[in-house]
Amino acid sequence: MIHPDRLFPSEPSRRTITRRLYDEVSHLPLVCPHGHTDPAWFSKNSHFTDATELLILPDHYVRRMLVSQGIQVLAIKGADGKLDHRAIWTTFANNYHLFRGTPTRLWLDQTFSELFDFTRPLCGETSDLYYEHISSCLMQDSFRPRAMVEQFNIELITTTEGPLDTLEHHKAVAQGSWGKRVITAYRPDAVVDPDTANFQQNLDDFGDCSGEDTATWQGYLNAHRVRRAFFADHGATSTDHGHPTAQTHDLSPDTAQNLFNKLRAGTTTPAEHEIFRGQMLTEMAKMSIDDGLVMQLHVGSYRNHNAATFAQFGTDQGFDIPQTTSYVKALKPLLDVHGMDPRLSLILFTLDETTYGRELAPLAGAYPSIKLGPAWWFFDSPEGMMRYRKLVTETAGFYNTVGFNDDTRALPSIAARHDVARRVDCVFLADLVARHLMHEDEAREVAIDLAYNLVKKAYKL
Amino acid sequence: MIHPDRLFPSEPSRRTITRRLYDEVSHLPLVCPHGHTDPAWFSKNSHFTDATELLILPDHYVRRMLVSQGIQVLAIKGADGKLDHRAIWTTFANNYHLFRGTPTRLWLDQTFSELFDFTRPLCGETSDLYYEHISSCLMQDSFRPRAMVEQFNIELITTTEGPLDTLEHHKAVAQGSWGKRVITAYRPDAVVDPDTANFQQNLDDFGDCSGEDTATWQGYLNAHRVRRAFFADHGATSTDHGHPTAQTHDLSPDTAQNLFNKLRAGTTTPAEHEIFRGQMLTEMAKMSIDDGLVMQLHVGSYRNHNAATFAQFGTDQGFDIPQTTSYVKALKPLLDVHGMDPRLSLILFTLDETTYGRELAPLAGAYPSIKLGPAWWFFDSPEGMMRYRKLVTETAGFYNTVGFNDDTRALPSIAARHDVARRVDCVFLADLVARHLMHEDEAREVAIDLAYNLVKKAYKL
Amino acid sequence: MIHPDRLFPSEPSRRTITRRLYDEVSHLPLVCPHGHTDPAWFSKNSHFTDATELLILPDHYVRRMLVSQGIQVLAIKGADGKLDHRAIWTTFANNYHLFRGTPTRLWLDQTFSELFDFTRPLCGETSDLYYEHISSCLMQDSFRPRAMVEQFNIELITTTEGPLDTLEHHKAVAQGSWGKRVITAYRPDAVVDPDTANFQQNLDDFGDCSGEDTATWQGYLNAHRVRRAFFADHGATSTDHGHPTAQTHDLSPDTAQNLFNKLRAGTTTPAEHEIFRGQMLTEMAKMSIDDGLVMQLHVGSYRNHNAATFAQFGTDQGFDIPQTTSYVKALKPLLDVHGMDPRLSLILFTLDETTYGRELAPLAGAYPSIKLGPAWWFFDSPEGMMRYRKLVTETAGFYNTVGFNDDTRALPSIAARHDVARRVDCVFLADLVARHLMHEDEAREVAIDLAYNLVKKAYKL
Repeated sequence: MIHPDRLFPSEPSRRTITRRLYDEVSHLPLVCPHGHTDPAWFSKNSHFTDATELLILPDHYVRRMLVSQGIQVLAIKGADGKLDHRAIWTTFANNYHLFRGTPTRLWLDQTFSELFDFTRPLCGETSDLYYEHISSCLMQDSFRPRAMVEQFNIELITTTEGPLDTLEHHKAVAQGSWGKRVITAYRPDAVVDPDTANFQQNLDDFGDCSGEDTATWQGYLNAHRVRRAFFADHGATSTDHGHPTAQTHDLSPDTAQNLFNKLRAGTTTPAEHEIFRGQMLTEMAKMSIDDGLVMQLHVGSYRNHNAATFAQFGTDQGFDIPQTTSYVKALKPLLDVHGMDPRLSLILFTLDETTYGRELAPLAGAYPSIKLGPAWWFFDSPEGMMRYRKLVTETAGFYNTVGFNDDTRALPSIAARHDVARRVDCVFLADLVARHLMHEDEAREVAIDLAYNLVKKAYKL
Repeated sequence: MIHPDRLFPSEPSRRTITRRLYDEVSHLPLVCPHGHTDPAWFSKNSHFTDATELLILPDHYVRRMLVSQGIQVLAIKGADGKLDHRAIWTTFANNYHLFRGTPTRLWLDQTFSELFDFTRPLCGETSDLYYEHISSCLMQDSFRPRAMVEQFNIELITTTEGPLDTLEHHKAVAQGSWGKRVITAYRPDAVVDPDTANFQQNLDDFGDCSGEDTATWQGYLNAHRVRRAFFADHGATSTDHGHPTAQTHDLSPDTAQNLFNKLRAGTTTPAEHEIFRGQMLTEMAKMSIDDGLVMQLHVGSYRNHNAATFAQFGTDQGFDIPQTTSYVKALKPLLDVHGMDPRLSLILFTLDETTYGRELAPLAGAYPSIKLGPAWWFFDSPEGMMRYRKLVTETAGFYNTVGFNDDTRALPSIAARHDVARRVDCVFLADLVARHLMHEDEAREVAIDLAYNLVKKAYKL
Repeated sequence: MIHPDRLFPSEPSRRTITRRLYDEVSHLPLVCPHGHTDPAWFSKNSHFTDATELLILPDHYVRRMLVSQGIQVLAIKGADGKLDHRAIWTTFANNYHLFRGTPTRLWLDQTFSELFDFTRPLCGETSDLYYEHISSCLMQDSFRPRAMVEQFNIELITTTEGPLDTLEHHKAVAQGSWGKRVITAYRPDAVVDPDTANFQQNLDDFGDCSGEDTATWQGYLNAHRVRRAFFADHGATSTDHGHPTAQTHDLSPDTAQNLFNKLRAGTTTPAEHEIFRGQMLTEMAKMSIDDGLVMQLHVGSYRNHNAATFAQFGTDQGFDIPQTTSYVKALKPLLDVHGMDPRLSLILFTLDETTYGRELAPLAGAYPSIKLGPAWWFFDSPEGMMRYRKLVTETAGFYNTVGFNDDTRALPSIAARHDVARRVDCVFLADLVARHLMHEDEAREVAIDLAYNLVKKAYKL
């Protein structure tokens, strides 16, 4: 059902080189420095219940494609008013052709084949067979979350938590006897972005959980310092910032304090919210220099684009749409202060591929503090990754990039996602070798760096 | 002169798969849901007069390339002050090398070879031979417009008319004995875009031809309803909207009415013209939900860029230049109201390829109302189509796209244009098969869908 | 160390065609119409001193990549406080892997192999060997600047000078017995861009060296005419304009004069500086029509992005970062006045690749005055050149492009840079031949045009 040469070029000389490179990296452990799996899975290690709960409900890639054809799976309910998991699965199977040519299809087919040993493709006819086999597998211990982590040869997995999180699951895993590292990353958007729901309440809670007075600017900054240290104690080596834009600011201390006071008084404008977010990126960079946490910046998504869908179903429904993003002027205030500091490590992500060659590779190819995150979200795909390498490498090289992020909440797909990335990188490198632009021994070294070494170095793992 | 494997990859395994896929689609009927041929050709079925009238004068792709090298064909005149068709053709033939690497060259060579049976390439030496042979062919009945439609195996062809058009030619064709369908599409720009020449007069005429009072907002909207129904009676299944931007608005009824009143009073600003156009897109979407007409949106061209050329020669001189276009915020007002309605079908086109992956595929991959039109205008080309598939498919799949549009006024090139599209799609699919990302039986099904089924479904044909 | 088939496709049929095309162009003379070599090299013909002086210090591509990994070579100094050339070279050699996949690596490897006859790759182990061999070569007469020009088969080389330059080196070369042409290009940014350091002083000096009264608008324009004529007397066939944006203006004479007076009074705003630059582009176009100098426009770089690096090390440190650039509305004022004039030749460059297909190819494919310069700076690379051809050719063809610019101050790399461009163009053409889109005899003609004829025609050489 899945071919050992999948994604490799059909031209024999390049295919042969690709196979040799891939053989060097296919069995390396997976390092997962950024993602959205649920840490409770690893602390509790409970069984997943059925195929729909495992593969459909948490995957907004799958659900949005069905919605785009008029199929809202969250509206498929039984007589009891609850989601009808079996009917959802059948609908999905009947419409599996919609995913032709998408990475979702690649990830799922590999998951079906390698995790569940299917040999016939999913379709309307095999729908029940799939549902029942998967659900029965999930009853077995070898399909519990920790077993999946082990089967996938995951060396370390990072989850992402808000600043108010207790991190109890990370603590439980660390104190237990399981030999795997599950660490967190500090994502403070809920107390940094004034456009977040319940922002004022979040700030109050932030004060409570840090023991600092978040009514004042200095207390608020201290609260970040306290919580960053708490996260670092639970293994965090990085922070993550999901902002609408890459705008940064470098306000004077007085101006920043006045802005914060106005914010807490609830009298700020949307434009001032943008300034506050921008100032906080510069503050976070400064704290990163102090405490050594690597800083990730994910920008450019217009979240919850459809009002009705957001009202009915909430966030993460597949209605987050990328927008044009610019980095050059936006990052300058932060970079003028901290950009040349070797202690800062700022990993940039984009949903605007036009910035790869025009802005991001030139920035990463100059500033010692900047590294480029891998192709993200819609572009975490074979063509997306290939464009990334072609647009980035000539200016920034390989060594200003940081390896792969699976960035997923779909645990069973993690092995397939890393595999696609490793294959595409080997295809890219084999093409350089076949065109005599790189020696094969160098390509082998780079392949291993891209699959394993760079991520550990960039994320300090 | 044209090779049976043209556009196919040279690598043998991919070429073989491509050939097999192409064999499945090459003889399927052509469905032409959007274009600019003259309906009088089909109702009157008159002879074209000569090679220049057929192939040069109506084709702004050809004329603009010659102008770019300082050759204005519309200035090549005889002693009588009229265009010298023979001299124009000779000039074109002497400069045919300018078209190397362009789709115009592909379309013309296929037309020369398949329609006119030439075996020697066009050049200065063969110029007269070409001119005389083509002109003598055109005297024959087998080269009249209806014969071309039949020879090309066109199942249906859509033209595009303004809201004031009488549609007499469509009526004549429908009432005659010819078995082909020639239908219209409702393109109301002349009464929607306040920047159109003679806009106020157009609105008055719009009132006359609809029997509604276009001095009032409700009368104006009713006039649209009346004319849409009239167009639907003449076969129309779609509307088309050529706007400078994708901006939409959802004004309150009072605000909209006040804006219309101000517009008719002639006191609006350019910014209010943009708001009016945006409001009308939302009104048109609402009417589409009511009457079932599919809605097409073509945006992003800076029309008539050169002032002197516009003053001397008018519109459609090859001086329409694309600009950056954004869809995400621009479409939100319309989509918040109607985007999730399964009765709306909105087909989006762009001249800004950066939006394929960043905006359009994510929108089409989420909203049930949105489909993506094919690569348009400058990008209706082998590389343009390939970029389209590579940038769109991974996020939106194949089934949120709508097949091919020839979008041309160059009747003799229609077969060649569809052939290029079918070849490129087969190349794209064969590459997926060769890299084991899709089974060949699936690829065959998709190839047929892209060539024939999707267009009929999307345009309700 | 470098392979004769480098950059060629591995697929045998395309590779064979590529080789045949490349054989037609590989030995053609190099024509270098735009670059930044130092004319003193050619007039004085002094020896270069060592490998670091030749290859590292003048090359901001090399230095920025090292800075991006925290290595500031300009800070590597000996006990005497001077740059330690040997230590810099060793650092560079130890980090040569950073350049994998970059064009710098290609250029350097070809230089090492063909100019200096190295057969072992550069690395930490061979660092001293390289340094000593290169430095000893440089003592030989056959490695002096004029000898390099001869060895590279350079037919003509253009340097770029500011409007105040005495052009003494060009005069010396022209009056000497050396048979090579070294010409200048007029780059008046220092007296056109009010944001330049010492702008007022420059204007005074401009008056002195031209004998015109640059306190007045007409005197200032006359000063340009005088200096353009002086440059033309020293061989110049072109001007060059490095502006932040492509904005042009067509002010009334009175408005322009008032703006100039305000400028000289020092009371202008940044927005007025942008207007002045834009007006000057239109003035320069008018002068080009009068004196026949070809006009080049290089726009879109955010210069000296990092404040600290600029303060410490000055300009050209690798911190010039591209930005989004738009041409359609920006160029309209100039093009409305002069765009259709066959005497104007305006060569456009961009650092925003999204404009190739969207704006630049449509503009060049319509306006007789516009030609497209080659892929520039970060995009002067194999992938960058291939994207350029794929995005430009289908709309603008080959004959609205102008061949290659090496645009470098790195003299020893010039042969390698032209070689990469010729190879990539042959790969592009061979692909058209292999896919039966162009006959091989046509491709041969185009290959020669791209390598040699177009540049001579476009730059009037």
